[in-house]
Amino acid sequence: MARIVTLAAAQMGPIARTETRPQVVERLLAMMRQAKGMGADVVAFPEAALTAFFPHWYTEDDAEVDRWFEAEMPGPQTQPLFDEARRLGIGFHLGYCELDRTSGRKRRFNTAILVDAQGRIIGKYRKIHLPGHADHRPQTPFQNLEKRYFEVGDLGFGAWRAFGGIAGMIICNDRRWPESYRVLGLQAVEMVFCGYNTPVHHPAAPDHDRLGQFHNELSMQSGAYQNSTWVVGIAKAGVEEGVDMIAGSCIIAPTGEIVARASTAGDEVIVARCDLDLGRSYRETTFHMAIHRRPEHYRMIVERTGPQAPD
Amino acid sequence: MARIVTLAAAQMGPIARTETRPQVVERLLAMMRQAKGMGADVVAFPEAALTAFFPHWYTEDDAEVDRWFEAEMPGPQTQPLFDEARRLGIGFHLGYCELDRTSGRKRRFNTAILVDAQGRIIGKYRKIHLPGHADHRPQTPFQNLEKRYFEVGDLGFGAWRAFGGIAGMIICNDRRWPESYRVLGLQAVEMVFCGYNTPVHHPAAPDHDRLGQFHNELSMQSGAYQNSTWVVGIAKAGVEEGVDMIAGSCIIAPTGEIVARASTAGDEVIVARCDLDLGRSYRETTFHMAIHRRPEHYRMIVERTGPQAPD
Repeated sequence: MARIVTLAAAQMGPIARTETRPQVVERLLAMMRQAKGMGADVVAFPEAALTAFFPHWYTEDDAEVDRWFEAEMPGPQTQPLFDEARRLGIGFHLGYCELDRTSGRKRRFNTAILVDAQGRIIGKYRKIHLPGHADHRPQTPFQNLEKRYFEVGDLGFGAWRAFGGIAGMIICNDRRWPESYRVLGLQAVEMVFCGYNTPVHHPAAPDHDRLGQFHNELSMQSGAYQNSTWVVGIAKAGVEEGVDMIAGSCIIAPTGEIVARASTAGDEVIVARCDLDLGRSYRETTFHMAIHRRPEHYRMIVERTGPQAPD
Repeated sequence: MARIVTLAAAQMGPIARTETRPQVVERLLAMMRQAKGMGADVVAFPEAALTAFFPHWYTEDDAEVDRWFEAEMPGPQTQPLFDEARRLGIGFHLGYCELDRTSGRKRRFNTAILVDAQGRIIGKYRKIHLPGHADHRPQTPFQNLEKRYFEVGDLGFGAWRAFGGIAGMIICNDRRWPESYRVLGLQAVEMVFCGYNTPVHHPAAPDHDRLGQFHNELSMQSGAYQNSTWVVGIAKAGVEEGVDMIAGSCIIAPTGEIVARASTAGDEVIVARCDLDLGRSYRETTFHMAIHRRPEHYRMIVERTGPQAPD
């Protein structure tokens, strides 16, 4: 009763500020082909995989901001990814910055999509847990302006039948919040894709720096275990425009174990043969949610945003 | 700005089925004194610390079941714990099985209390996530009849001002469910006590056996990190009436790091000097819940008990 899907994480090294979309797409295509050669059914790229991670820099120039975003997906410069996926017969997951005008006003999201092996978009997620700040902090070595450049995602945490199972997406900071995985777990998700751009240095809390990789793994491993799902973590890594980012892309089993891990801080493909049925022995015993969960005692999770101390 | 409390975990080796309450209380008193000698302000004992873990055995004899429970707390046999705590000036946390008649009918709970350094009960928790099954499974080497012998706790996940900070309690299986810690985190909890009786062997899923200690640590470490709190895990350990139970009592910092760990499977006291302010640098940055959480996207957590797959 094995249901095998071979998942690949395509970690990316830094993207220079001057690198063009076609140049980046060439890197992605090279890794897509490599993943296919390693037997992958799906290849997952990082968060905001088409550009340098511009929320590290402050600007008030709206037109400059727009240049980091995609107004259509696929667009002329990203179409080759869809064409090559269809040609190879491989699915993919891609993070990018989305400029949306469908509501009549301009909205910007930190977005990820699932694309099937026929090159069709089958799922879209817009990042919900935006980290950082909206204000200008010129005194720090770099900034984290996601709350300035993006709106909070408005699509919820979705799950889709894909790649022979049920797939969901979260993005970067979402992975530190157990609610993200749980909402997916409550949709019986079997594989979660999570791209990230995570600096080594926390300007507001430098004492956390030594623990970056530990916290990355702890968050994803617990999310996998507690929801009986595979998790694929895909890093943008290395020193990008002066900002050192953690690597450590990995594929995590429903046991919580890391079964594949990147060993560089550059472009690197890792794969694992993932049995989607492995989660069943957890889902039907320790984590049989229907018989063990007690939502009547969880109401505070939705009724409070921040903490309130007891009297 | 350090707010130091020295916490002790008093792990217990097996309790024989024939061991009397006074005999067990003597063991607890010895560890309480030892903890005091190690500078502890609070000593934490395991789940159901006064008896062998009887849910491993099936019986239909109601009077026999009652013998594992405490009809009053303190009662004549447990009063020495309260007296000694007051004499030493040390707080304690104790798990026990509670027989409650206040509602006019007999109810049984898997309960834990917090007792201050004056010997006064200041908080009570009744276990919410009861694992196991209610039906007789004589074919297994031992059973896990918590769903038979206990009612689901009716007091919620409470938090109390205690020991210079804010304290909460969860019990055993609660620690695998991120909702448990989150409801405490939303009460600004700074220290969580969690006693457990966890067999090495899972009769329903023996392939999980090799991962018992890993899952124990993963659950508590992620709960600590994601809620910026200290967590004290206290095991009943060793081979008790033929059932081998995991040990690994530990004290976990808000960084998610294990800072103290038991090294035996017997009665053993470990301590750590815990700075309750250590969690602040997380609570005010990465995990600043008030500015980062998005409860409008978490509703499924309270609206569904078990998973529903997408169409």
